Formats: sequence, structure tokens, C-alpha cells
Amino acid sequence: MQEERVRIRLVLVGTEGEINLGFIARLAANFQVDEFYLVSPQASPSSEEAKRFAANGAYMLERVEIFNSLDEALAGVDIAVCTSAKTGQRSDVLRHAVSVREFAQDIAPRYGSIAAVFGRESVGLTREELSKCHLLVHIPANPDYPVLNLSHAVAIVLYELWIALRFRGQLHEQVDSRSLERVYKLLHDVAEKLVDRERFPAVDAAIKHLLWRSGMTSGEASALYQFAKKLRRLVEECSSSDA
Amino acid sequence: MQEERVRIRLVLVGTEGEINLGFIARLAANFQVDEFYLVSPQASPSSEEAKRFAANGAYMLERVEIFNSLDEALAGVDIAVCTSAKTGQRSDVLRHAVSVREFAQDIAPRYGSIAAVFGRESVGLTREELSKCHLLVHIPANPDYPVLNLSHAVAIVLYELWIALRFRGQLHEQVDSRSLERVYKLLHDVAEKLVDRERFPAVDAAIKHLLWRSGMTSGEASALYQFAKKLRRLVEECSSSDA
Repeated sequence: MQEERVRIRLVLVGTEGEINLGFIARLAANFQVDEFYLVSPQASPSSEEAKRFAANGAYMLERVEIFNSLDEALAGVDIAVCTSAKTGQRSDVLRHAVSVREFAQDIAPRYGSIAAVFGRESVGLTREELSKCHLLVHIPANPDYPVLNLSHAVAIVLYELWIALRFRGQLHEQVDSRSLERVYKLLHDVAEKLVDRERFPAVDAAIKHLLWRSGMTSGEASALYQFAKKLRRLVEECSSSDA
Repeated sequence: MQEERVRIRLVLVGTEGEINLGFIARLAANFQVDEFYLVSPQASPSSEEAKRFAANGAYMLERVEIFNSLDEALAGVDIAVCTSAKTGQRSDVLRHAVSVREFAQDIAPRYGSIAAVFGRESVGLTREELSKCHLLVHIPANPDYPVLNLSHAVAIVLYELWIALRFRGQLHEQVDSRSLERVYKLLHDVAEKLVDRERFPAVDAAIKHLLWRSGMTSGEASALYQFAKKLRRLVEECSSSDA
């Protein structure tokens, strides 16, 4: 059986700057875009500047496909979303947007393929271009200055899609309860020896809460286990020298 | 009473590029950073290039404070997080990271002030610098090429903090149930006239499901109401001419 995953097509309309184009190629590599389409670009994907800013994502510049119309670039996708820093008043329904978080989490996973469309640095997308998308997507930001640079808007949209569609599981192996028990047992013994009998139940509960709420990695638990062993040895040695 | 909100301090260590510095100033304006600190920068915040790429966020370059050590730049914050594209093996606990989503959603809101620390474009943060942070934060991305450009990493971290700490409510006024009822009543009448009696319950239910599941804005509902009124008039006129 084939792996089923939502395909992501990145569509840039009329991109003007080669630095932006290079940065966006790098982002397309960072977040594994499947198709990278340009509609009537002003900037050249084969320019030295674009390649330099693409860094190790320069291979994406070679995979670029160039179209003369947005219609062609949107052919065959299940859902096309336009992005805009401008959202509309009540009556301007063409500019009613969903947030990029809502789009990525709730809407995108329902479709087999997505096109995310970004306009020109200077003037964005025309109303005619906006009307070719199924949805308008907006990145919430400071209302006094919500206009992000193009490549940073692309970064946030691709990142949201990565988290919603591609990212599985944890960054590190999470601790299991048995490893927590081993750390706890040592700290329990230490606390029992050091703390007054009437205060011990509170300290013991605090230690348990701290450990089981921590969301520790197994590496962190292992480091704390070494530390707790030293503590228990110290307490045992000092107690016996007291005796 | 004063507004209570989490203060965000952006700390850049040894930033090398003026384009990045300008872009980051713009992002600091886009996402309302409270304090913008540089530790031993290589790039000059007063350079023409930085100003040009900062666009309407250039005022943030004038608010920059420059320090000689990370310790000074972190003074007084409740939690300092370092960011890194590299995460560690099991035993390298210094490089065990939480995801930026987990940090922003679950951890940041508990504190009164946050410092987000970003390293050099070329080599990131040293282990000594990492050890000065309370947590390491990581942006999940393509494991084959997870290294984002500096300003794009800043964009994603500030965006996540904005969504978790600053963004309140909806982009647009949401529809209320009464407005949905008005649209539904019209479409109900239209369907009743047009659809066979045995199929009507399914069509009527589909219309209700579509409307109440839609998450429409009130502007969208108002546009659909106009459309549904035209539809009902058409159906009434055609029915009477049939009679």
C-alpha cells in the first residue's frame, strides 16, 4: 500500500525579490513541499542571489515549474488557499479569512492535496486572483503592523502545515513510569531521612507531583537517577557517621 | 488595574547578517516584542541594509539594547529559552528540547516574562550559552534539512508566542444562530418546493448540517441570505406561472 499523505503545492505569484525567492526555496526544503510553482515571476530562480539564499535548499530552485496563469498553477489540487495580510470588513466576503492555525489543524487534513498561494511583495494578490482560491488564510499579527515579509509569511504557513500534516510524535524518547519510579524511590529515601516526620508527607507528595508532571525525556530521567543515587549515598554515609 | 500580559524579550547572540537583523526587527514589530536585545552583534543595527529590510519595523532597530554577555541580556526574566536546530541524543541532556508549540501553549503562559534566545547564523549557540537557558526550544522540520535561516526561526517562535499569548478571539464577527435560521428558513422553503417529498428530509438535513457546521462569518451569512431570498422569489414566481 502507498503511504497516504497530503501533498503540498507552494504557489508564488509574481515574486519580485531574489532574496525572498532563495529564502523560500530553503523553506520549501525545510518543510518538504512536494511541488514548487511560480506564476509569472519577476525574480529569476536561476539567479546567483536566489541560489545563495536558498543555501542547502537550492535543489528546490531546480525543481521549480513556471506558469503564465494562476489557473494553470492550481490545476488538479483539492483545495487552494490564498494568503493575505489584509482581511475584509463585514460586507467584503472575498476577504473573509480563516486563521492559518484553523486551516492547518482543522481543514487541511481533510484533503489529499493543498495549494498555498502567496502574492507579490508590493501589492499581494489581486481580487481576481483571490477569487480563484477556495479559502483565504490569514496570519494573525500586530494589528498596527500585520504585514509580514513574503518569505516569513511562507515560513509560518509551511510550518503550520508541517505540524498538522507531517510531524508525528515526540522530539525525544519520553520517560516511562518505571524509570520515574526508580528516581522517586531514591528521593523518597533521601527525604525520609532528612525531613521531619510531620513534614514528610508534603515533601513526598511534592516529589511525586514534580516527577510525574514533568514530561521528562528518558535521558533526563537517567541523569537525575545518577544524581539521586549520589544523594542517597551521601545521606546514608552521614547518618551512619552520626550514629 | 494594569493590563497583565506576558512580556517578550527577543535576544540575538552574535548576529552576523544585516539582512537578517532588518528582517528580525520587522518581525519584532509584526509580533509586538517588548524588548529587543543584541549580545555582541557582528551586524550593525544602524546600517542602511538593516533599516531597509526592517521596512515599517525600522523603529525597533532604534530601540535595540546591546550587551557584552548573555548573562546581562537575560537579567530579570522569569524564563529564558534557547532555540536550536540541533537536538541531542539520549545522553546529551543539555540538548533535550521541547517543541516550540508545547513551549508557547503550555509553558510560556505561566510566566510573567520570557526571553527567547537565538544564536549565530553560522554556528548557533555554544554549549556554555545553552547552559544559561532554562529550556531548549526546537522547531520541528524536515529531518533531512531542519536548519532554518535565522530570521525564519525567529518568525515561527514569535508567531507561536503571539498565538498563545496575544491573539484573542476571531478574525471576523461570527454568525449567530438567528442569522443562520433566517438563511435556513429560505433554503428550507426553496427545497420544499423543488425536491420530491421522499427526498426532502435528506436535503433539509443536509442544508441544516452545512449551515450549522460552517463556522461562517456574519458577513458571509448576510451574503448568502441575499442569495437565498432571490432563490425563493424565483421558485415562487415559477411555481405561480406553472399554476
